[in-house]
Amino acid sequence: MNVNYKKQHGTNRNKSYSVKNVKNKPPRSNYKYTKGSAPAKKKQQQNNNKNKPTIRIMFLGGLNEIGKNITLFECNNDIFILDCGMAFPDGDMLGVDLVIPDFTYVEQNVDRIKGIVITHGHEDHIGGLPFLLSRVNLPVYGTALTIGLVENKLKEFGLADKVKLNVVKAGDTIRLGCMRIEFIHVNHSIPDSVAVAIHTDVGTVVHTGDFKIDCTPTTGEMIDLARFAELGKEGVLALLAESTNADKMGYTMTEQTVFESFERLFRRAEKKRIIIATFASNISRIQQIIYCAQKNGRKVAFSGRSMLNYLSVATELGYLDVPDDVIIDIDLLKRYPDDKIVLVTTGSQGEPMSALSRMAYSDHKKVEVGYGDFIIISANPIPGNEKTVGNVVDELLKKGCEVVYESMYEVHVSGHACREELKIIHGLTKPKFFIPVHGEQKHLRKHAELALSMGMEHKNIFIGDVGNVVELNDTYLKQLPSVQAGKVFVDGLGVGDVGSIVLRDRKHLGQDGLVIIVATLDTDNGSVISGPDIVSRGFVYVRESEDLFDDVRRNVSNILYDCAYENIHDWGTIKNRVKDDVSKLIYERTRRSPMILPIIMDV
Amino acid sequence: MNVNYKKQHGTNRNKSYSVKNVKNKPPRSNYKYTKGSAPAKKKQQQNNNKNKPTIRIMFLGGLNEIGKNITLFECNNDIFILDCGMAFPDGDMLGVDLVIPDFTYVEQNVDRIKGIVITHGHEDHIGGLPFLLSRVNLPVYGTALTIGLVENKLKEFGLADKVKLNVVKAGDTIRLGCMRIEFIHVNHSIPDSVAVAIHTDVGTVVHTGDFKIDCTPTTGEMIDLARFAELGKEGVLALLAESTNADKMGYTMTEQTVFESFERLFRRAEKKRIIIATFASNISRIQQIIYCAQKNGRKVAFSGRSMLNYLSVATELGYLDVPDDVIIDIDLLKRYPDDKIVLVTTGSQGEPMSALSRMAYSDHKKVEVGYGDFIIISANPIPGNEKTVGNVVDELLKKGCEVVYESMYEVHVSGHACREELKIIHGLTKPKFFIPVHGEQKHLRKHAELALSMGMEHKNIFIGDVGNVVELNDTYLKQLPSVQAGKVFVDGLGVGDVGSIVLRDRKHLGQDGLVIIVATLDTDNGSVISGPDIVSRGFVYVRESEDLFDDVRRNVSNILYDCAYENIHDWGTIKNRVKDDVSKLIYERTRRSPMILPIIMDV
Repeated sequence: MNVNYKKQHGTNRNKSYSVKNVKNKPPRSNYKYTKGSAPAKKKQQQNNNKNKPTIRIMFLGGLNEIGKNITLFECNNDIFILDCGMAFPDGDMLGVDLVIPDFTYVEQNVDRIKGIVITHGHEDHIGGLPFLLSRVNLPVYGTALTIGLVENKLKEFGLADKVKLNVVKAGDTIRLGCMRIEFIHVNHSIPDSVAVAIHTDVGTVVHTGDFKIDCTPTTGEMIDLARFAELGKEGVLALLAESTNADKMGYTMTEQTVFESFERLFRRAEKKRIIIATFASNISRIQQIIYCAQKNGRKVAFSGRSMLNYLSVATELGYLDVPDDVIIDIDLLKRYPDDKIVLVTTGSQGEPMSALSRMAYSDHKKVEVGYGDFIIISANPIPGNEKTVGNVVDELLKKGCEVVYESMYEVHVSGHACREELKIIHGLTKPKFFIPVHGEQKHLRKHAELALSMGMEHKNIFIGDVGNVVELNDTYLKQLPSVQAGKVFVDGLGVGDVGSIVLRDRKHLGQDGLVIIVATLDTDNGSVISGPDIVSRGFVYVRESEDLFDDVRRNVSNILYDCAYENIHDWGTIKNRVKDDVSKLIYERTRRSPMILPIIMDV
Repeated sequence: MNVNYKKQHGTNRNKSYSVKNVKNKPPRSNYKYTKGSAPAKKKQQQNNNKNKPTIRIMFLGGLNEIGKNITLFECNNDIFILDCGMAFPDGDMLGVDLVIPDFTYVEQNVDRIKGIVITHGHEDHIGGLPFLLSRVNLPVYGTALTIGLVENKLKEFGLADKVKLNVVKAGDTIRLGCMRIEFIHVNHSIPDSVAVAIHTDVGTVVHTGDFKIDCTPTTGEMIDLARFAELGKEGVLALLAESTNADKMGYTMTEQTVFESFERLFRRAEKKRIIIATFASNISRIQQIIYCAQKNGRKVAFSGRSMLNYLSVATELGYLDVPDDVIIDIDLLKRYPDDKIVLVTTGSQGEPMSALSRMAYSDHKKVEVGYGDFIIISANPIPGNEKTVGNVVDELLKKGCEVVYESMYEVHVSGHACREELKIIHGLTKPKFFIPVHGEQKHLRKHAELALSMGMEHKNIFIGDVGNVVELNDTYLKQLPSVQAGKVFVDGLGVGDVGSIVLRDRKHLGQDGLVIIVATLDTDNGSVISGPDIVSRGFVYVRESEDLFDDVRRNVSNILYDCAYENIHDWGTIKNRVKDDVSKLIYERTRRSPMILPIIMDV
C-alpha cells in the first residue's frame, strides 16, 4: 500500500523561481568546513588568539511561546534569519487578529542580514514574512512547497514581485555571508520540511525546525537521520531543537496509522456522507483522504478558503497526487448520494468563522449537516481550543451527526517529535551545547531535563526567552545583553497600533461595559447649558435600571452645580470629580466597575 | 495503612439542625412502595384505568452543560427539587461572575413544591440555592457535610435564619408529598455524597447524583452498591445517571493512588518546601495531604479563602481529622525550614485571583515562591482552563520552582465514574428507562450509547435539554411541552440584569473598542454650537492616529452642516447618518469596526 503513496514530486517544482546562491552539498566523505569569505574575515582570523571567533544567536520569538518562530544567527558580522512566523493571540489579546515579532532589531541591522531561510510552510514559520518584507527587502530561501506557500502569501500583500524567492532542495547548501546553510530533510505535518545545519568557522550549529521521525511516511522520504549522524561525527557545536512535544512520552505514531483509521471509519460510515475536518496545511493527510475516498468509490470536495489555498499550491507544485475524477466542486455535492461523498473542511480547531463551525451552527452557504453525516475531526485541539472544539462537536451531535473526535480513534498523529524521538536527535548529533526552542517554559524545561538525562552538562544548556542573545564557540556559551524583541499586534490593517493601553481598555469595556456622562457647560461660568445625559453600553439592561441612572444624573447635576458655585472651571478637575463620584455610586449599588467616561462640551 | 484513614465521623454531626421529616428506611426484606398521601391521590386512583398515574421530571439545568444541576420531580401534583447548582460562565459571557438557573417555573409552582434535596456540597449542586431561597422559602434536605456547606453559604447571603435545613444520613428515607426519597451512599470527590431513590406509586426512579465507585476510599465507606442491586431487583422504573466521564474508558482509579503518589513525591521533594494546589472541597484529598505531611514530619498551612471555608465546616462537623500540632497558620511559615512545610492552596484551575496564581505572578501577600519550592498540582484542568493552568505552571517554572502537573504522576483522580463504573450501575439497577444527565451533548450521547450497548432499547432512552419535561410510568416515557428554563447571569449584585444585548455590547466593545462622537446643536436650526468632539477607548493608540481622527471630525462636521442645511432636525436621523458614515470611513482605513456612539446635546 505504501508504494502508492510515494509519488514522484518535483515535476514542475523549480518553476519560475530564481535558483541563485544554491550549491549542492559537497560529497560527504571529505566534507570540511570551508572558510567564510566575509570582509571581516581576515581581521578576525588575525585576532584569533586573543579573541576567538564566535557565533551569536538572537531569539526574536519562539521561546516561552507557541508560534512566532524567528531566530537570527550571526557570525563574523554576517547575519541570517531563520523562519519568520506569527502566533495566534491569547484570550486576553482582545480583538487582535494575529501576533508578529517586533522587527526593530532586524530593521536596525538590515545591512548585515544576508537573507531569510525558512524551514517549512506553516504559519508559525512564514506568517510574519509579509510584515517583515514590507519593511526590508531580503532574499528568502526555502524548499519548493515552502516557497510556493510564501509566494502565495506575498501575493496577498502585493509583495510577490518585490521579493527574491529562492528554491532549495534538502541536501543543498547555500552560502549567506560567511555562513553555509545546509538543508536536511525531516518529517513533519507538511511536506518539504527541513532542518538546517549552519556551518561556520566556529563550528556547526544544527537547528531542527519542526520535525518528527516517521520511518514510514505516507508522502516523501523518512527523515535524513544519516545526515544528522554524520554531522554528529563531524562535531556539532550546538543543537537547537524544537520542544513542542518534549513533555510527551514515547514516539509519535506514523502517519500510516491515520490511513488505517480512515479505512476503518469509512467502512463504519456506510451509507452516510463523510465530512473530515483537518489542518489545511496537512497535505499528507489530505492525500490520504483522497486515496481512501478513491478506494471506497467516493468523490472528494473541499470547503474553506485556506484549504483551497494550500491545495492549489500543493497541486501546482506536484505535492498532491489528484487522481482523475475524484475531486468535485462543492457546488456539485447534491448530484451525488451521501455514500459517494467525502467533504474535507477547515475548522478542526473550532474556529468561529471556519467552514465546520458554520456547518455546526447552520451558517454554511453550501452544506447542511444532519443525521446523514459522519464527521471525523482529524486533529487534536491546540491547548486553549478545547472548549471551542467541544462546543462545535456538541452542536454537530445535536443536529444528529455522528462525530468521531476522540483520540482513541487515532484519526490524527502529531507533527512533532515526542521524547524518544528527541533523544535520537540528541544522541546522533551529540552537541556540545543545547538550546531547547519552540515551546512554552514547561516544554523548554522538559527538553532540557531530557538533555541532562542523556549526560549533557547543566552549564551547557541554555533556556532562553524572547530577546535573549547567546554567544558561543567551542569553549563557552554565554548570554549577552538582550536586544529589542516582543509581540506586535496586528488588528485589521493596523500593525502595532494596538498596545497595552488599548488592550487594557478593551478588557475593561468587555468585562464591565461603559457609562458615558455628557454635559454642555457655559465656558464663562461653568453653568449647565444642556445635560447631563447618561449613555451606557454593556453595563446593565437600562430599562430595568432607570432608578440607578436617575440617581447618577442627579448626582452629576449636583457636582456640576457645586463646581460652578465653587468657581471651578477646569474641565479636568470637574471630570475627575464626576468620574470618582459616579464610580463609587455605581459600585455601591451594583458591585460593578464600568468604565466611566465624563465628556464636557463648552459653549 | 488504610485503617488510619477510616476515621470515625459524625461526632457533632447533627448539631443544631432540625431533623424533622426524616425516617429511617424500613427493613429491606419487606420493602414495599407505600402509597402517597397527597390530596389529589384519591381522584387519581379512581382514574387509574383511563389515566394511569405518572411521574414527571423537569430539567431546569445540567443537560447540555457542565454544572447548574437542578431537576424537579413531580408525582400526584407534588414536586420536589433535586440539587440547585450554579455554573461558571463560558468565555463569551464577558464580565459574568456566575450562571444560575432560571427559577421562573419554581416560583410559579412554589405551592406544590415540598422541598429541596441536595446530593452533595459542590457548587454545581448547591451554588444556586441562595438565589432561589431569597425568593422562595423551602426546606432543604441533605447529609451533614452538605447541609453544613449550605448553611455556610446561606450565612454569606444573610439567609441562614430564614431557611429550614434538615440533616439526613445515607440510608434514611424522607417523605416529600407523595414521594419518598431514599438516600444512598456513593463515593465522590467530597464526602457525604448520596444518590437518591425516589419511591412513588408509579415506580422507583434512581438519580445517581455525582458518583464513582471506589472500593478503597480514603475516607468513609465504599459506595452502597448492594442497595443499588436491591433496588434493581425490586424494579427501577427509570435511571438518571451522571455522564461527566461517560466518554472515558475503564475505571476511575481509587483515591489511594493519590496517597501513594504523594508519598513518592514527598520523598523526591527532599529539602524543598512542598506546595499542593487542589480543589478546596476535596476534603479526602486534603486529609491525605495532612496524613502524608504528618508521616513526613512536615507542618501543614492553608492558603485561599474558599479553602479555609471548607476546612472550617469539615473540621467542625468531624469530616476532617486534624492531628495535634500539624496545622500551622500561614503567618508562621517563616518560622519553619522549607523541608518542614506543606502549603495547601487553591488555584489548581489557574483562576486569576486564586492563591496559586498570586504566588506565580508575585502577587501573594504572604508567600513568595522560587527555587526552594516543589509544587504539586493535584487536579486536572477542567475543559476550558487548560491554557490558564498552563500559564501558571510556566510562571512558576520561570521562577525556578519544580512543578509536577502532568497526569502521569497520578496526583489526581477524578470524582466521576468512567464507563465501566457506569455499566455497573446500569447492570445493577436494570432500569426500564434511562435518562443520561450532567453533561454536554457529547457526554449524554456517549452515555446513551453505553446504555444501548447493554441492551436497552432506543425508545427507552431520553436525551434531553434544559427546559425539557418528560412524563413516564411503567408503560411509556414521553416528552411534554417544555417549561421556562435557561441561564440567568449574576454580575456583581445584579441577578439577571445582564442579558444578551448587554453581552453583545460587551463583546463588541472588548473586540474593537469604541468611538464616541459628541456635538451640541441648536435645537431650532440644527447648527453646531460646540464640537464635534471625538473620544475613543480601546480602538487605536490615539496619538498615532491623529490623521484618522481629524478626518472623522471633518466628516462629521460636514454631515451636521448638511443636515442643518437640509433642515433635518430629527436627532435620530442625524445620529444614524453620522454612525453609518463614520463606520464606513473607519472600516476603510483600518479594517476595524469599533462601536460608534454619536451623542447629540441640544441647546
